[in-house]
Amino acid sequence: MNTKEKAYAIAKAKMYDNDAFSQWLGIEILDLDAGKAVLQMTVRPEMTQGFGIAHGGITYSLADSALAFASNSHGVKSVSVETSISHLMVVNKGDTLTATATEESLSNKIGIYTIKVVNQDEKLVALFKGTVYRSSQEWIKIA
Amino acid sequence: MNTKEKAYAIAKAKMYDNDAFSQWLGIEILDLDAGKAVLQMTVRPEMTQGFGIAHGGITYSLADSALAFASNSHGVKSVSVETSISHLMVVNKGDTLTATATEESLSNKIGIYTIKVVNQDEKLVALFKGTVYRSSQEWIKIA
Amino acid sequence: MNTKEKAYAIAKAKMYDNDAFSQWLGIEILDLDAGKAVLQMTVRPEMTQGFGIAHGGITYSLADSALAFASNSHGVKSVSVETSISHLMVVNKGDTLTATATEESLSNKIGIYTIKVVNQDEKLVALFKGTVYRSSQEWIKIA
Amino acid sequence: MNTKEKAYAIAKAKMYDNDAFSQWLGIEILDLDAGKAVLQMTVRPEMTQGFGIAHGGITYSLADSALAFASNSHGVKSVSVETSISHLMVVNKGDTLTATATEESLSNKIGIYTIKVVNQDEKLVALFKGTVYRSSQEWIKIA
Repeated sequence: MNTKEKAYAIAKAKMYDNDAFSQWLGIEILDLDAGKAVLQMTVRPEMTQGFGIAHGGITYSLADSALAFASNSHGVKSVSVETSISHLMVVNKGDTLTATATEESLSNKIGIYTIKVVNQDEKLVALFKGTVYRSSQEWIKIA
Repeated sequence: MNTKEKAYAIAKAKMYDNDAFSQWLGIEILDLDAGKAVLQMTVRPEMTQGFGIAHGGITYSLADSALAFASNSHGVKSVSVETSISHLMVVNKGDTLTATATEESLSNKIGIYTIKVVNQDEKLVALFKGTVYRSSQEWIKIA
Repeated sequence: MNTKEKAYAIAKAKMYDNDAFSQWLGIEILDLDAGKAVLQMTVRPEMTQGFGIAHGGITYSLADSALAFASNSHGVKSVSVETSISHLMVVNKGDTLTATATEESLSNKIGIYTIKVVNQDEKLVALFKGTVYRSSQEWIKIA
Repeated sequence: MNTKEKAYAIAKAKMYDNDAFSQWLGIEILDLDAGKAVLQMTVRPEMTQGFGIAHGGITYSLADSALAFASNSHGVKSVSVETSISHLMVVNKGDTLTATATEESLSNKIGIYTIKVVNQDEKLVALFKGTVYRSSQEWIKIA
């Protein structure tokens, strides 16, 4: 199993199949690998808020899912401890958002990721930074 | 109209009535005033993720809604520019979360808020800090 | 040795005596206890920047020292992994700043602290949030 | 005056010449342009703290200076409102740090920047994100 297959196996077995909220969001996996994740979703009317635009929590949730997929891809259970997001542009109903997670740093216990979220015009709508704590639990054993 | 009535009038007229996602979340307003908001919701199964616990985006969304209600309560349209959240404890299906927003600083153009999210046992599950930009648009005129 | 004495013993033996930069800053310890620290300093001319006010790094440094004292006070070596600071008011040459660190959450491996920095008029000039990773190394043994 | 000359003129006239703390830090400007800044410094003994390594405030100060130079380079006075920094690796006495600021987003009133700080081995030691508020004051007029 190479790093890409491992990342998909973890995502399938342990996370996405049971991730009811990511499914409600309509998140699709475009790419996964060790320390990487690219996820996509389209904003539906029930995801909007009082200003007639997507609730900030929608963009955050997409980015946070990308953090989870990217950080867990190594096979070690990783939990988010601190995340920040800058909302840069309005996201409208009907927009398609793509989140790309990049691993900035990985030590034995701590991983740092940036996630860029762009819309269908490739405009950056949000910039997310996430810190995870890496436990000693492994997701899967590789035979 | 006092500050409390004004905060509720803004929330009702401009935000909550049209906030489809906050309604999907089941957010209830417990208290509003100038610079303050207390919101509550209960975690449903469709809000959980692959670890069998609430998706980080759910807690963020509740806190972000509290930020929006608190910062817009003064009658000036305010938009979130930067937010961070520390996830401190696991949130489970069935937990009831209460978010309390406090205004830490308010200048002409920038407002800073902290939001504490506790569960039904009064345990702190998340600590959120939000920065808003205050535009020159007013929500409502007071006669 | 009670919690207060232990916090002072750690600060003295392991940190402050060797902390050249905190000494350059002129930081004084007003109070220490388990999970708590109150530090004070006065802004000198060599700490200012091009706008004629204190460099943002000065306020950050004071708050970051408060984080270090508060998080190491339990006797377990703790290192900062992620910190954020909101600069709320201009800090001028001659201002006396007091930073108070509060422990918001403490688990086996992660601690979360907020630090409020006020000036001599008790005005909040900065709001800091810090996340530390707690190693398994102990600072001192209690006989 | 092109964008590069303008960035240097602002840095010289308005900021660096009067920035006592950046001078104490020994910050050198390697490159400036519209929305960009590359700064370098070397860690001296008086910049270290109780763990025998550089105080977190030193790395922050370098990154914060890079934020100031990059965001003010457009000629509009910009002030930091919220910054975060992840400390990824220990910085030792004698290390040479290089901070590179990149503009992620720029609107009329808000700018978002990431600053990466590497050591002499090109290892990433810190990741910084900064949000600035852009006032309506101009630094210099271009004839």
